[in-house]
Amino acid sequence: MTEKPMNAVSNEAVDSCGCGCGREDLPWSGRGTDLPITGCRFSLYPMTDDFVSIILGALDKTDTSHVWCQSDALSTVYRGKREYVVDAVAALFANAWREGVHMALEGQISRGCPGDVSGDSVLSCEGEAPNASIVAAATQPALAKLSLYPLGVENYIDDIAKVWYRAEELGLNPTSIHYATRVEGSIRDIFAYFNDVCALMERTVSHYVLHFTINVNSPTDEEE
Amino acid sequence: MTEKPMNAVSNEAVDSCGCGCGREDLPWSGRGTDLPITGCRFSLYPMTDDFVSIILGALDKTDTSHVWCQSDALSTVYRGKREYVVDAVAALFANAWREGVHMALEGQISRGCPGDVSGDSVLSCEGEAPNASIVAAATQPALAKLSLYPLGVENYIDDIAKVWYRAEELGLNPTSIHYATRVEGSIRDIFAYFNDVCALMERTVSHYVLHFTINVNSPTDEEE
Repeated sequence: MTEKPMNAVSNEAVDSCGCGCGREDLPWSGRGTDLPITGCRFSLYPMTDDFVSIILGALDKTDTSHVWCQSDALSTVYRGKREYVVDAVAALFANAWREGVHMALEGQISRGCPGDVSGDSVLSCEGEAPNASIVAAATQPALAKLSLYPLGVENYIDDIAKVWYRAEELGLNPTSIHYATRVEGSIRDIFAYFNDVCALMERTVSHYVLHFTINVNSPTDEEE
Repeated sequence: MTEKPMNAVSNEAVDSCGCGCGREDLPWSGRGTDLPITGCRFSLYPMTDDFVSIILGALDKTDTSHVWCQSDALSTVYRGKREYVVDAVAALFANAWREGVHMALEGQISRGCPGDVSGDSVLSCEGEAPNASIVAAATQPALAKLSLYPLGVENYIDDIAKVWYRAEELGLNPTSIHYATRVEGSIRDIFAYFNDVCALMERTVSHYVLHFTINVNSPTDEEE
């Protein structure tokens, strides 16, 4: 197959420490930058023979005017203001959804990486998120897990507690599993929760990464 | 669909801090435990209508006698000695591989989480990894990205440099992308590299998490 479902990545070096990996010239200290850029690197996995058309269709339908985008054969990255980045990723997943089709999206939302650069972002937009109505309509049930890494701080237990309580407040039924926390709810509510967690982290630490996976239409029948 | 491609997870509470999320009663300090348990939580995404049979077949073919296993609708976790955990995950991906079928595996390898428990693991096994011959034969080309989080330390730049150089030594052509490092090589060589990175982290920090994604048979044609 030689389709090209996403934009090709350039081979230019990117000044990113890979959140701890890949920069041998950077005095990585655990202290984040104060760049107001949130990024989300994500991959969409529709488990169907039609995966290319679903991915292409979702990318096409999603309004990315408020974020910077780059894709390669592994993933896509959106960078800009946090609310617009989360809006675009949530809308992409909502746009990809098809009745009965099992699909997953894995992503990492990050801000404050000491190796980050001021470029490759869109920060000039204002106003309502461009995909707000699509996200608001995304009430399909989903499962998700998240692992949160507030970096460069030693004790942030109060904030972790807030993250857990926030999931409970939103009715997302959080449960602890090895290495992650599981939540369940609509696509809309889960991404709203991720946005809340990121907003909390912004106020708390200079550098954080939130890894998440969200899936829909899972054929797995979990015993209660 | 009501197939049950993986074992159902129990609803028992798991004593895990989710690497920073989900435990409101734990004085998370960034200091890891000294439990000799490495875990890998992973999800396999075959992008084909046959995804259930591929997942089931891969799980069935993989010798998991040397690790503790648990699956739910989002992911599977293997826990035990690091070399056996990596062996099992690598073999599962190799066993899933099919000619021309695009598939991805995302995972997080972790050790030393302060909220970890001494149970849910297999630590008594010795000798050669049970899937060693399968992994050794997995020379199919793959792409991968990784993000490494050494936790509870402020300055580990020398070790990060070693991780990067190790990828170069292995001929994996590391490149920096936003929030991650990309490598390319065979399934076998990429997992051998992940094992090396984890071994290095064990000697360096008390708590680390390595998030990775590996895919094969991507239809994306990247421009050079």
